[in-house]
Amino acid sequence: MGSIETKFEKLATDNAPGQETRQKAGTIETLLCGDSIAGTPVDFSHGDVDAFAPAPGSFEAFAAGVERGGRQAYTEYRGSLEIRTALAGRLADFTGAAVSADDGLIITPGTQGALFLAIASTISAGDKVAVVQPDYFANRKLVQFFDGEIVPVKLDYLDTRERAGLDLAALEDVFKAGAKVFVFSNPNNPAGVVYSRQEIETIARLAEHHGATVVVDELYSRLLYDKSPYTHLRATDIDPERVVTIIGPSKTESLSGYRLGTAFGSTRIVGRMEKLQAIVSLRAPGYSQAVLNTWFAEPAGWLSGRIAAHQAIRDDLLSKLAAVEGLRARKPEAGSYLFPRLPELAVSTQDFVRILRRQAAVTVTPGAEFGPHSTDSLRLNFSQDHKAAADAIGRLVELIGRYR
Amino acid sequence: MGSIETKFEKLATDNAPGQETRQKAGTIETLLCGDSIAGTPVDFSHGDVDAFAPAPGSFEAFAAGVERGGRQAYTEYRGSLEIRTALAGRLADFTGAAVSADDGLIITPGTQGALFLAIASTISAGDKVAVVQPDYFANRKLVQFFDGEIVPVKLDYLDTRERAGLDLAALEDVFKAGAKVFVFSNPNNPAGVVYSRQEIETIARLAEHHGATVVVDELYSRLLYDKSPYTHLRATDIDPERVVTIIGPSKTESLSGYRLGTAFGSTRIVGRMEKLQAIVSLRAPGYSQAVLNTWFAEPAGWLSGRIAAHQAIRDDLLSKLAAVEGLRARKPEAGSYLFPRLPELAVSTQDFVRILRRQAAVTVTPGAEFGPHSTDSLRLNFSQDHKAAADAIGRLVELIGRYR
Repeated sequence: MGSIETKFEKLATDNAPGQETRQKAGTIETLLCGDSIAGTPVDFSHGDVDAFAPAPGSFEAFAAGVERGGRQAYTEYRGSLEIRTALAGRLADFTGAAVSADDGLIITPGTQGALFLAIASTISAGDKVAVVQPDYFANRKLVQFFDGEIVPVKLDYLDTRERAGLDLAALEDVFKAGAKVFVFSNPNNPAGVVYSRQEIETIARLAEHHGATVVVDELYSRLLYDKSPYTHLRATDIDPERVVTIIGPSKTESLSGYRLGTAFGSTRIVGRMEKLQAIVSLRAPGYSQAVLNTWFAEPAGWLSGRIAAHQAIRDDLLSKLAAVEGLRARKPEAGSYLFPRLPELAVSTQDFVRILRRQAAVTVTPGAEFGPHSTDSLRLNFSQDHKAAADAIGRLVELIGRYR
Repeated sequence: MGSIETKFEKLATDNAPGQETRQKAGTIETLLCGDSIAGTPVDFSHGDVDAFAPAPGSFEAFAAGVERGGRQAYTEYRGSLEIRTALAGRLADFTGAAVSADDGLIITPGTQGALFLAIASTISAGDKVAVVQPDYFANRKLVQFFDGEIVPVKLDYLDTRERAGLDLAALEDVFKAGAKVFVFSNPNNPAGVVYSRQEIETIARLAEHHGATVVVDELYSRLLYDKSPYTHLRATDIDPERVVTIIGPSKTESLSGYRLGTAFGSTRIVGRMEKLQAIVSLRAPGYSQAVLNTWFAEPAGWLSGRIAAHQAIRDDLLSKLAAVEGLRARKPEAGSYLFPRLPELAVSTQDFVRILRRQAAVTVTPGAEFGPHSTDSLRLNFSQDHKAAADAIGRLVELIGRYR
């Protein structure tokens, strides 16, 4: 059983967002300095759906799904045809390229489900897979789980402006070296940066030239600040069969509790994803699927209001962090993550994260989850109650001072 | 990409229950004989949750989950501790052995999700896995997907009474030959037979002796007819760390639309399952988890009423099938499947299934899905409107006569 044990060790979730409650009392006692700081606990590891409520009409749409009965409970594995049909048009409008409701779209349990199925449907053991550093931690774990070989490509988000900062020359080298799949998130999770048109077009050209498949996680692509320009990879000249695009309503729309996501594009890959979904979880929750009827169909003004509220929090937290000497943070152009790099501390980042939770009731995700170059960074999901988040950043700043 | 294509070909879902709507018009035109027979369409590929409604209080429990907000939307990957705690006691009472809410129980998206995670967490490429024939089709597909080697063990359900009919000598040989995992459903899906105490105790003894892990799918173990005796494997002398038990509320309780299942037992395997769930779908749908508060806590009399209603349908359909010369069917002791073996027909079973759908609006699942010895059988889920099901069986009987 050696091999399977090693495999699951790589899937460690001890520091994953939301799992902090499972951490055993550690060895930080001897490191503690000073008293705890009182304040409303804030869990920056994920968004607070109590502060930003689920999009309007979601529960009513669910209730209508239950009312619809068996037809809604037992859909095709890829999801209800009726819902896929309504959604295909909206997703095509949003991304700027056609979506086939019949063969090119699958509804999944969250975008996590979509990502799992997409990776499982594109890579075989030993395949080289290009993965961005830093990027969403599950990308790395998924490639490892299916015995793919990770080939890292660095994102220099901190020292770049006007574009995300992907090392395009390195990406070309990686394709030349035989990588057949490229997986990345745009906007980038954790850095919140958006790939420029030139970056996306270069990715398209390189993938096309080297015959690679691209899985692009666009989970946060609706939450764009300052009308940031955004280029959907699928709307470029790339062969549509080379691209799977993933997006879902768990973040901007706060619908995570319903477990919904979608993947669309390549009919070949979507076909495989459905076959796999049949043995993974059968289908996205039947009644929940009905909630997608509200998606991309929210009341006028709802999305812009939500963006404005997040932008105000972003700016407030960033201004507080700017006061910390030696801390570096690029202003995110999209999404609800901040990814500041800490100044040098007297304790490890790992220990600081635990101290922060213990002494300040502030939960964050350590940067090491996202790649080996981010061990001194923290990810904070700022989709929170504004005042509570601002106060929590105050406590974070105080503890950075204390543990320098 | 040769290897991944082969891998996904083995996952074919064309004849899987619920996927019939995706079948292209086939070549059955030339085979058709006589006119169509009018009647209410019945889809025996799964239960009809409009005929047998979701268990009482399920929607209200879901609504309470939504009301609870973020705490319910973002649970631990293994599911809400509060709900696991309530559930652990009830599952322990039901199965006759302790369940650890903290380390030995995971909530999954359906029992399909539990089965996927359990198989993925116990087998490595090349491992020999004992699989019953016939048994739930996903067992075979899951082992194949993870590159395990299937070692079949025959269930002689048709010519056996008083026990399920597992070839225990063959099981012993398979363990001796190195099988490290045994996966089976009890009651058996598709045959509806229950393993006797002697069969379960022999499985326990053999697994213990040969150091094997057992994954037992007890999805239908609440729907027992005539107070049929039932032995939970986990309540035998077997080392609890060797067993994962799977059960969920999708069938008897008609809660499939909420996508809920549980797996419990081995803390080592449940730990792995959670790590994997983190990258497969994060967690069972958060709000849905709250529906489990109603599970094993239904109003007095509800379960016995549901059993009685199913038993009446079972007996009615079986008496109609008994009139067909050459057709063989064992009376199921549990669950809601009939698995009759057809007499010899002039068309293949595969074609007959399509003809049945075309000419009689009756959807069934071909026996070939469940194993190579069942190609002349059909699986019918009789959790249907009683009258519609009885009429549909009348049309089935008529078409058997027509296509002999």
